[in-house]
Amino acid sequence: MAQQEFDTTAFRNALGSFTTGVTIITATAPDGTPVGLTANSFNSVSLDPPMVLWSLAKTSLSVEAFNEAKHWNVHVLSQEQQDLSNTFASRGENKFAGIDLEEGLSDAPLIPDCSARFQCRNMVTHDGGDHLIYIGEVLNFDQQDLPPLVFQQGQYAMTARKPWEGVELSSEPKAPECSYNEDLLGYLLGRSHFQMLFRMRKVFDEQAHEDSHFFALSVLNIQANLSLEEINDYIEYTGHSLTDTDIEFLISQELIEKLDDETYQLTANGRETSLLHIAQAKAIEEELIRDLGQGDVMALKLLLKRLISKTDPGLPDLWKAKETAK
Amino acid sequence: MAQQEFDTTAFRNALGSFTTGVTIITATAPDGTPVGLTANSFNSVSLDPPMVLWSLAKTSLSVEAFNEAKHWNVHVLSQEQQDLSNTFASRGENKFAGIDLEEGLSDAPLIPDCSARFQCRNMVTHDGGDHLIYIGEVLNFDQQDLPPLVFQQGQYAMTARKPWEGVELSSEPKAPECSYNEDLLGYLLGRSHFQMLFRMRKVFDEQAHEDSHFFALSVLNIQANLSLEEINDYIEYTGHSLTDTDIEFLISQELIEKLDDETYQLTANGRETSLLHIAQAKAIEEELIRDLGQGDVMALKLLLKRLISKTDPGLPDLWKAKETAK
Repeated sequence: MAQQEFDTTAFRNALGSFTTGVTIITATAPDGTPVGLTANSFNSVSLDPPMVLWSLAKTSLSVEAFNEAKHWNVHVLSQEQQDLSNTFASRGENKFAGIDLEEGLSDAPLIPDCSARFQCRNMVTHDGGDHLIYIGEVLNFDQQDLPPLVFQQGQYAMTARKPWEGVELSSEPKAPECSYNEDLLGYLLGRSHFQMLFRMRKVFDEQAHEDSHFFALSVLNIQANLSLEEINDYIEYTGHSLTDTDIEFLISQELIEKLDDETYQLTANGRETSLLHIAQAKAIEEELIRDLGQGDVMALKLLLKRLISKTDPGLPDLWKAKETAK
Repeated sequence: MAQQEFDTTAFRNALGSFTTGVTIITATAPDGTPVGLTANSFNSVSLDPPMVLWSLAKTSLSVEAFNEAKHWNVHVLSQEQQDLSNTFASRGENKFAGIDLEEGLSDAPLIPDCSARFQCRNMVTHDGGDHLIYIGEVLNFDQQDLPPLVFQQGQYAMTARKPWEGVELSSEPKAPECSYNEDLLGYLLGRSHFQMLFRMRKVFDEQAHEDSHFFALSVLNIQANLSLEEINDYIEYTGHSLTDTDIEFLISQELIEKLDDETYQLTANGRETSLLHIAQAKAIEEELIRDLGQGDVMALKLLLKRLISKTDPGLPDLWKAKETAK
């Protein structure tokens, strides 16, 4: 077959379609120096005997060390170890600085807090074009329930797991694409928000609160000394607004108080109420983390933040200190 | 080193921490029969020359065919090909039934609609314990912008990509964990929902609609002949409710009409208005797909559905036909 003209960049991009985890592989050089690098070319080979493989560019500065090493360790990185991945992907020195290495079976450095680790004895090294393929026997391994870091199309990523049985909200066959069905993102966001708020309401309904009161207390929890107009600037996008009557009600409930400059702040009681709301919201979130999994909730939050950034109509930054000269 | 007692199930679970894509590898047996199987043991090896590898259990029924095959094709599956993945993971016959195979460089079957494909010439096969490692030279490849199927911890998954620059909603340093900050899931859901609705309001504000009117029209778009009470059963969880005054307003606007049995349905005008809302919601969603990527929006919807299932307070199924005997 004729030799193809190969576009290496396009080839690399196509390979990027295959999603991988991210690993750091470590060994100790003959002179005792620890070496390590980030690789996503790891994969399982055999269950019995337990074997794994990974490959290393022949141009890598660590080739010599790995060729001499009898042992190497594979660390499947967790979501929290993205910085570590970047460090070990660079050619910098002292990559191991600040890492509290653990004692392993061999002299290969063992990094803590990974999703999984495989301590291996190098069995054989095969030629693989511009790379070398290292195949090792797994002597020991361990695993922690930490969401793994993912790499796809040249980007880090998180996973959203698909239950085997699927997820259908309605028991009815799905309506055609063009109509209103449970796949509409706007519907899913609204229903998610309102179901979460529905749980919250059990707490704040006891104090006969309106949604607008709840939003106002949350805003005043972050920013003190806001005028009614300023409060409404922050909550306007919810479609709710606070009226003079609402203000009177909140004052009568001793939740907020008026200051000399016609601005408002939480009373001690109001702060306690608002903190109770936050504690309740966090409790609901903890329950969801148990139900959906830590990694999936992390992925959901990431996606919501990206959606919020993209759809922001220019809302004032609630956490930014008020300008004093106002 | 002493032989370790190896728990194969635990080892398999630990390997599952390493996320992978899902591939189907195909070849043609000497007798002309197409063979194919699902594998996640694929990985890249070399860029120049272009080489990839994958491994196959020695007990596989296809071993003989692959050992004889001069060529094999790797198909990186898309999210839409989960069923195909299941088919090729089974030992069933006629796995290729119904697939409109394409013409490739070799005799190996080429499956359409994949995220990426690599047409390979087998270079060398290495022993790998209970598996064989096939290393191939990539003769041709192609790629489509289809979100890839992902496998992690024994489950299919989707990815939520992390932008390199990170995503921060506030320019301020983050408040401590215990207080109200932008990481609170309830806040993120509320803000996402309201920002989406904020965009929608541009359309329905022109008709001086309240949120409750919008929700009522949506419900009547799915279910006709609902009483006021029944409408409110469906929208109660939003904290909104429809009053007699709202009903009068919607009738005066010729959006809904009252039937003889004291139930309501959309007028032709009301249906048109509701369809306009849905079209607008879909347009906003299309814009988000362009901004965030198809795969990320799919992952977001999946996670929201899982959240809704877990937090459902027992809402009536909007898409389920009303019982006639009511």
